[in-house]
Amino acid sequence: MPMRIERDLHMATGNGETSYTKNSRIQEKAMFHMKPVLEEATREVYTALLPKTMVVADLGCSSGPNTLRFVSEVIGIIARHCKELDDRRHDRPPQLQFFLNDLPGNDFNNLFQLIQQFHKSTARKHKGEAEEALPPCYITGLPGSYYTRIFPSESVHLFHSLFCLQWRSQAPEQLKGTKKTCLDIYITKTMSPSMVKLFQQQFQKDFSLFLKLRYEELVSGGQMVLTFIGRKHEDVLTGESNHLYGLLAQSLKSLVDEGLVDKEKLESFYLPMYSPSVGEVEAIVKQVGLFNMNHVKVFEINWDPYDDSEESDVVRNSIRSGENVAKCLRAVMEPLVASQFGEAILDKLFEEYARRVAKHLENEKTKHAVLVLSMKKAIHV
Amino acid sequence: MPMRIERDLHMATGNGETSYTKNSRIQEKAMFHMKPVLEEATREVYTALLPKTMVVADLGCSSGPNTLRFVSEVIGIIARHCKELDDRRHDRPPQLQFFLNDLPGNDFNNLFQLIQQFHKSTARKHKGEAEEALPPCYITGLPGSYYTRIFPSESVHLFHSLFCLQWRSQAPEQLKGTKKTCLDIYITKTMSPSMVKLFQQQFQKDFSLFLKLRYEELVSGGQMVLTFIGRKHEDVLTGESNHLYGLLAQSLKSLVDEGLVDKEKLESFYLPMYSPSVGEVEAIVKQVGLFNMNHVKVFEINWDPYDDSEESDVVRNSIRSGENVAKCLRAVMEPLVASQFGEAILDKLFEEYARRVAKHLENEKTKHAVLVLSMKKAIHV
Repeated sequence: MPMRIERDLHMATGNGETSYTKNSRIQEKAMFHMKPVLEEATREVYTALLPKTMVVADLGCSSGPNTLRFVSEVIGIIARHCKELDDRRHDRPPQLQFFLNDLPGNDFNNLFQLIQQFHKSTARKHKGEAEEALPPCYITGLPGSYYTRIFPSESVHLFHSLFCLQWRSQAPEQLKGTKKTCLDIYITKTMSPSMVKLFQQQFQKDFSLFLKLRYEELVSGGQMVLTFIGRKHEDVLTGESNHLYGLLAQSLKSLVDEGLVDKEKLESFYLPMYSPSVGEVEAIVKQVGLFNMNHVKVFEINWDPYDDSEESDVVRNSIRSGENVAKCLRAVMEPLVASQFGEAILDKLFEEYARRVAKHLENEKTKHAVLVLSMKKAIHV
Repeated sequence: MPMRIERDLHMATGNGETSYTKNSRIQEKAMFHMKPVLEEATREVYTALLPKTMVVADLGCSSGPNTLRFVSEVIGIIARHCKELDDRRHDRPPQLQFFLNDLPGNDFNNLFQLIQQFHKSTARKHKGEAEEALPPCYITGLPGSYYTRIFPSESVHLFHSLFCLQWRSQAPEQLKGTKKTCLDIYITKTMSPSMVKLFQQQFQKDFSLFLKLRYEELVSGGQMVLTFIGRKHEDVLTGESNHLYGLLAQSLKSLVDEGLVDKEKLESFYLPMYSPSVGEVEAIVKQVGLFNMNHVKVFEINWDPYDDSEESDVVRNSIRSGENVAKCLRAVMEPLVASQFGEAILDKLFEEYARRVAKHLENEKTKHAVLVLSMKKAIHV
């Protein structure tokens, strides 16, 4: 069965060792960094519009602890903000309606169990406090690709997306069905410039579409906070993602050499991904002309999300770090890789990958470059 | 593990022989009967409010073909109505936003796959037609009990519920933990009047709460169309549900005799159900005083949903009908029964049940009494 994005692009399910739930610390770290931006955008939207019900959408919510951490953040921001306002005037906090969106292959059943626990624990935590302490909160699940319209026009106040917009709607269209001579799955230094351009074009097409769709869905005065993996340098050939997926391609290639992976399957496999630079993102936002950028920032997170040493340039335990990176990437990539190459190779592939990452980290402590953008719907008079 | 309504009250999953998907013809028939009422309510709400986005909620949506049949009906009603209006003035159809609600134990993953197919087939069917032909439609899933608040205040235009409101939020509270002497699981002629009263009180409490919650959630001018299993006669001891569940209790009892079901487990098992009469429903609506009843109707559906002979009072093939009834009830009851008595007994139980139903139908062609109500949020000046 060929890979199908709608079905196969989702995080590893369940609660086991290789699940996304157990391997999403990098997303947690990113949330820590983007919190101030989220806080500012949320406050601004609420203050400007004072909606009776504030509609907040999380695009690419997945189904793990981070999903409800985001919900919890927004509830906290609104609660604090309304308390401050309340000292001046007597507003009641607004109602909050959350739409948690992901592709239909996402494990919404698991997410809905988490929501139920979340409601219960929130109620327990605030038992005895004044009823007004927390804004009433209603949470729904919205299946569908954010590269299509998923909301009625002008119905959302705040969009948020964490670690998703590096995914494309598909691998570059013109690469489909073509066989590559090298066995790259993403941009490398040896890739032909015309192929690199196809990856860039897919990003430009997808991101423009994304902006246009969200513009329609946002109310006037609405904002978006988008956090995703990007590139620190403008040069497309020196991104940190190139290393990350380059090592995965090498691991797949070594499985081809061992006869465990069909060479033809690797020849037709490209990642539906692109990690853009700040310049590329800004150029598209400007070109589309529907949003005013409030904020752009790049921060870095060690490849090994359990390595919290921000200062040192040396990886202390590269073997362990290699394993951690492999676990994280497996949680994100497993369904996609399994649908192309079969489940049987997963353990072996990610063991090989861990070794290669460890070796890489011995020479160079590599970090993800993460972009945080916040932008406001432009008013066209 | 004791039975938990939130987890265990849902239709049998999957697409197999005993699944709800394959055994929901009775719900399909009910939908045929209630369609004119739905059409009238939908038109009235739209005409009165002309919302830019019409918000429609299906409460207890389950996860089968009927769920999207309802969505499809509403889309059709709005499309036809707007076309008629369009001859007079130039309105564009509104956007439709559907919230499909059920308990968190419902198989939303399956439902979301169906939604995806639905979007695709709708797009295919209307390819080439004018873009305005169908109202744009956005579908979300909403986990939670409708005996709690699940929507922001005044955010819904139309509520619908098909074959769910006979379910209570729990079995009568005061029966919990008590051991019954007879082995009834629902009201029978031999049940003590005080126990019968507890079933009635649970209904009164739940239905009042339901009305109060929905009143808060409906916009002014909003309506509800509710279809559920009720009672034809006012006498609480002569309902058709009494027979249906009486035969299930007898089947369980015979498994106790055979040593397959633990007697203590049956002694503490009551169905979280009540099938009210029109009089009972009207009394509560009046007492709560938040809705004006537009329409109340009772119609009947043969226990065997594949028996389409409405005229004859004789069941032609009682063996086959017994099996059909057993299949339908199993699709609805399986998770609940399995959580109380274990999965191992299911086949045997419903074989026994089919035999008992067949015998019953030889003497008396029994029908479900189905209530259809339509009501409008009252305006309090």
